Amino acid sequence: MTQKMVEQYQAQIKCLVALDSIIFGFDGEELKLLLVKRGVEDDGSTWSLMGGWLRPDEGLEEAANRILFELTGLTDIYLEQLYTFGAPHRDRVERTVAVSYFALINVTDYQERVSHTYEAHWFSMHELPRLLFDHGQMVEQAIERLRYKASQHPIGFELLPEKFTIPQLQKLYEAIFDAPLDKRNFSRKILSTNLLEKLDEKQRGYSKKGAYLYKVNEEKYQKQFNTFLNFLPNGGT
Amino acid sequence: MTQKMVEQYQAQIKCLVALDSIIFGFDGEELKLLLVKRGVEDDGSTWSLMGGWLRPDEGLEEAANRILFELTGLTDIYLEQLYTFGAPHRDRVERTVAVSYFALINVTDYQERVSHTYEAHWFSMHELPRLLFDHGQMVEQAIERLRYKASQHPIGFELLPEKFTIPQLQKLYEAIFDAPLDKRNFSRKILSTNLLEKLDEKQRGYSKKGAYLYKVNEEKYQKQFNTFLNFLPNGGT
Repeated sequence: MTQKMVEQYQAQIKCLVALDSIIFGFDGEELKLLLVKRGVEDDGSTWSLMGGWLRPDEGLEEAANRILFELTGLTDIYLEQLYTFGAPHRDRVERTVAVSYFALINVTDYQERVSHTYEAHWFSMHELPRLLFDHGQMVEQAIERLRYKASQHPIGFELLPEKFTIPQLQKLYEAIFDAPLDKRNFSRKILSTNLLEKLDEKQRGYSKKGAYLYKVNEEKYQKQFNTFLNFLPNGGT
Repeated sequence: MTQKMVEQYQAQIKCLVALDSIIFGFDGEELKLLLVKRGVEDDGSTWSLMGGWLRPDEGLEEAANRILFELTGLTDIYLEQLYTFGAPHRDRVERTVAVSYFALINVTDYQERVSHTYEAHWFSMHELPRLLFDHGQMVEQAIERLRYKASQHPIGFELLPEKFTIPQLQKLYEAIFDAPLDKRNFSRKILSTNLLEKLDEKQRGYSKKGAYLYKVNEEKYQKQFNTFLNFLPNGGT
């Protein structure tokens, strides 16, 4: 490397790098957000996303996973990179670039682990406390991405039992979009995708009539959403 | 802020922050990539994406735009944030986190400006030179994102003339997916979206028969792709 290049490197500013994860949870009824308690910050906030700093020998995703584990005990969560936030004064103390990740998990499946940590709590999306820095903006962007994904592909089957009813799936969609959906329309349209297999069993105990159970046809699901031009009826050419 | 918090900040590593933009161009025939010439690097590469370092008072997108302008003269390009790369040794000199952006533009529209800079050149995607660092990986990820978008929504109308033929649109899709598409199927399927309006004019000079010209129905386009549950036939409920 030339002296000129060394000087170029030395002339640049350096930033702290933070990882912040937005963990959404579905409990069968509503969408929740996992937050950790912090001391009172200068801006009056006391709750934060799953955030921490990058270490010297870590990759970004590795760091996000390590921080999530340290704060909540959660492991084996697939974190998807969302967006990187780097406005000059987003952290008032030092210039910090924050790489955000998000995930949507089943609250019940992970409840035991999360409840063993004293710092992490699930909040209803309708009752979020004031969040640190630009974490509120991160949450908004994550919701937007989640809605986009849910509008492009049927998602979230992994949050439901293996056998589920159409009303259960509808609840998930209503939670993601925070809006009621017409029952008959939702049912007709989701069934018209031909991705669900009707089983010869009914869910018991909820009503006299009972609702039929369905499962996802994994093969069709993979095939349909790996087809190119899938905005066109019947997929690609 | 408490002394403990100050110490926490001081204990963290700091990184250089780079912005790298992947600028795809469509020239009516194929997909191209805009690259800038650099001196020979330690890894033998001589070409790079539109890359540079963050300045103290810049936001990330602002920096990406400034760097693109400095290297190519291009302005008013909508850069979409793609992904942030931060593997520990991706830059051998100093730990650098790179935030990547991408855009797809019409080569012809911007040719004059780009050709006035001696450093920037369009390369066919089939004849890319060896790229700096992990820039090859960035390009792959950008292509993947572009294909995903093109598979979910019809895209790229802004790269075509206001009035275009179905074969012109097909060329764009073939360029993005780097694959030939069946003419009859493509035509049938793209027309079945009902997003295009057939005009009472034909394109001249290409064949005796001529191909009909179409334009996008902006209203339908906006409506259809802002509908939620748009993976379901006829959009949401």
